Amino acid sequence: MLTYNLNNEKSPLYLQIYENIKKDILNSKILPNEQLPSKRKLSNHLCVALITVENAYEQLIAEGYIYSIEKKGYFVSSLIENNLYLHKKINQDNEVKQKIFIEKQKSNYFDLQSLEVDTSLFPFSIFSKLMREVISEKNKNLLTKLDSLGVYELRLAIKKHLNAFQGINLKEEQIIIGAGSEYLYSLIIKLLGYDSLFALENPGYKKISKVYNSNNVKIKYVDLDEDGIKVSKLVDVDVIHISPAHQFPTGIVMPIKRKLDLLKWASEKENRIIIEDDYDSEFRFKGVSVPSILSIDKNDNVIYLNTFSKTISPSIRIAYMVIPEKLIPIYNEKLGFLSCTVASIEQYTLARFIDEGYYERHINKMKNYYRKKKNLFFDLLKESKLNNISTIYYKDSGLHFLLELDTNISDQELIEKAFQNGVKITCLSQYYLKDSLIKEHVVIINFSLISETNFEKVIKILEKIIL
Amino acid sequence: MLTYNLNNEKSPLYLQIYENIKKDILNSKILPNEQLPSKRKLSNHLCVALITVENAYEQLIAEGYIYSIEKKGYFVSSLIENNLYLHKKINQDNEVKQKIFIEKQKSNYFDLQSLEVDTSLFPFSIFSKLMREVISEKNKNLLTKLDSLGVYELRLAIKKHLNAFQGINLKEEQIIIGAGSEYLYSLIIKLLGYDSLFALENPGYKKISKVYNSNNVKIKYVDLDEDGIKVSKLVDVDVIHISPAHQFPTGIVMPIKRKLDLLKWASEKENRIIIEDDYDSEFRFKGVSVPSILSIDKNDNVIYLNTFSKTISPSIRIAYMVIPEKLIPIYNEKLGFLSCTVASIEQYTLARFIDEGYYERHINKMKNYYRKKKNLFFDLLKESKLNNISTIYYKDSGLHFLLELDTNISDQELIEKAFQNGVKITCLSQYYLKDSLIKEHVVIINFSLISETNFEKVIKILEKIIL
Repeated sequence: MLTYNLNNEKSPLYLQIYENIKKDILNSKILPNEQLPSKRKLSNHLCVALITVENAYEQLIAEGYIYSIEKKGYFVSSLIENNLYLHKKINQDNEVKQKIFIEKQKSNYFDLQSLEVDTSLFPFSIFSKLMREVISEKNKNLLTKLDSLGVYELRLAIKKHLNAFQGINLKEEQIIIGAGSEYLYSLIIKLLGYDSLFALENPGYKKISKVYNSNNVKIKYVDLDEDGIKVSKLVDVDVIHISPAHQFPTGIVMPIKRKLDLLKWASEKENRIIIEDDYDSEFRFKGVSVPSILSIDKNDNVIYLNTFSKTISPSIRIAYMVIPEKLIPIYNEKLGFLSCTVASIEQYTLARFIDEGYYERHINKMKNYYRKKKNLFFDLLKESKLNNISTIYYKDSGLHFLLELDTNISDQELIEKAFQNGVKITCLSQYYLKDSLIKEHVVIINFSLISETNFEKVIKILEKIIL
Repeated sequence: MLTYNLNNEKSPLYLQIYENIKKDILNSKILPNEQLPSKRKLSNHLCVALITVENAYEQLIAEGYIYSIEKKGYFVSSLIENNLYLHKKINQDNEVKQKIFIEKQKSNYFDLQSLEVDTSLFPFSIFSKLMREVISEKNKNLLTKLDSLGVYELRLAIKKHLNAFQGINLKEEQIIIGAGSEYLYSLIIKLLGYDSLFALENPGYKKISKVYNSNNVKIKYVDLDEDGIKVSKLVDVDVIHISPAHQFPTGIVMPIKRKLDLLKWASEKENRIIIEDDYDSEFRFKGVSVPSILSIDKNDNVIYLNTFSKTISPSIRIAYMVIPEKLIPIYNEKLGFLSCTVASIEQYTLARFIDEGYYERHINKMKNYYRKKKNLFFDLLKESKLNNISTIYYKDSGLHFLLELDTNISDQELIEKAFQNGVKITCLSQYYLKDSLIKEHVVIINFSLISETNFEKVIKILEKIIL
């Protein structure tokens, strides 16, 4: 019989019973289609009123955890086993099912498609220790209203970090904290105005394009040459959104010359702005970091963006941007009323994590880890039969590189066959606009999520498909 | 001569030289227009190859730190000084200073203007205990990518809460977690589309209007009568944004009749939506909660919004919305790509806080606390000389009420004199559009931030000004 410790002083008894039974169902202690004790039996057993058990059962029925059969009793819902979404009949049922299906299968695939990062090496114990410290030291102060730009300590920590790593000197007022890059993209659009013409890279990161589209602004897609976005195509453009440190998907590292050309472009007309999206610049594997455009800008024309999603974890939801000094009063006027979107506890904790040197150490560790991983992949590729038909591009930066294959198999076929064989890949061609001059046979290798032990298997599968 | 400790085992020598010179320039050890040693001299001095210094100088030139004059040599760029923002005289300098000044003075005022809530009674020790539990139990799982709608456990907890408090049955897929109401307003606009005509209340909460304006959508301000927004003015409108439980600033609690009229309005034309902004409905001081429009909607036309900023703390940055089932597929298609904006730790912690009954208990405690506070204010007012010229409106809900004064003093004068006497107030008239029929002599009393011991002082000051 179900036995639970109930406590009169906690929440209502029926809720406690309901919670306990639910937990047991979710933990498979009670199995699908198993019969529950009758209401009377359970009420006697738990020494509670009949109505209490009735209420608990009702709630469980309402939420779909159990069902009743007249004159027979109460049974655990059989769909629970799979997941909590399944007993719903809603329009997108199939979509949800499929999503869950894919989600579940994910682990069975070698995923070269995902842009997620490897969080397994993150010093979570340190981070949580700092968080506990913040909680006990700041205590109720954590409840006071936040500065709309973000917690001062965090902005100061970021300022110092940017100074140490990129030699950039900023004012704290230029730094704005937000809940992720996507949120900051939207802020930038609001800041620069809906009348601006925004140029995005073609090929480019699809999410950026989706955010701009969802904000209903004018977009122009601009082709890249081997140095990055083409300056000659920017005559009518007001704002460009680029990732010069390591463009996605091409991997292009923008040379200083193009950076200077873009700064020149920006200074030639009022209100021109360069948005420098520095999403994974920390992972430069050769030489030192390439200077950001922000660090060489003399004319206050760069909005710089970076995130802790790639270096720490996507679940931390902290990104920041640096706005030009000339835009500070405009920001205050237009958007100063907005509350900061990141909780205070996270902000203080991250500030300490940076200030106490953990962030730098973690980045260095990850850089070595990713470098080794990448090199292992290259070595295995060299030893494989693919070696003769492979060319690798842009291998010194970031968490992906390009693998060009000398083959006649179409990208579509390659992707499908890889999927059938348990490997998820994407090709460069998928990132171009429809009517562009598309480069085929170039596979994007996002290697961060896949474990080293599986590299050989992946290469064997690609061999099998292509050769 | 420039002297640096170079280390063969570190980075390439040219980079070390480049870095050192750059640092000296940034730290003003070498001044603008100062001449650098010739390449040959420096290479001899540092015992490195000529090409090494050449490379370093080239990099410095490329990044704009130095410039060369033919046959003369290398000089520090004079623009650096500005570039580093160090000696900038920026426009908003005074503005920032002034802001800080006002901020500092805040504590010396009796603030009846602020909409902030009293967080002093929040059981922070329990919340932080739960957070520590979440950290130690979930551990590294907290780093995995979030569901874009929000953490499942939190959506389930909210679902149960809405069920218990308002008798609403929802699917978890209808609940979307976001970093504050303002963020969710923007999501709603993106969801419903930029072609919709949005109706906002006049008078209304200014932040709502600012968010809509910053999103560049079409707005129509619609007057209120004593029951809330006027249905007759909504013929051309697609979406209304209202706060029926306790309108700000009027305090109107919308009667069921008007709610039904609005639901009828919504069902009369496709794509009509009611946004029900339930920001402080928890604080109903008389009887039980008034049913939300969502709870009586049969036709899937209501987007319901609520926040934990008012009931817990503004620094927690968690709000949620409930979207109609029919909008789920549209949300997924248009905005499903967006990451959730709230960190996982906060979401799991809040889920437990709700699940374990603490949230409900806290709301009840605050309700009693605010009720007593409000009643004390009324009692003191009754005993005061203002009693004969005072009428109080809408006193049974929320964290503010209206105090109408039978006086000839203009609102502007009243506000100014109060400020001079150390009391910050706002008047209803400040919330109307310019060309509206404005109601004068109605003070908005936001009583949540002001301590009970100061009520008497505030009333004395008002007496002094008005009588």
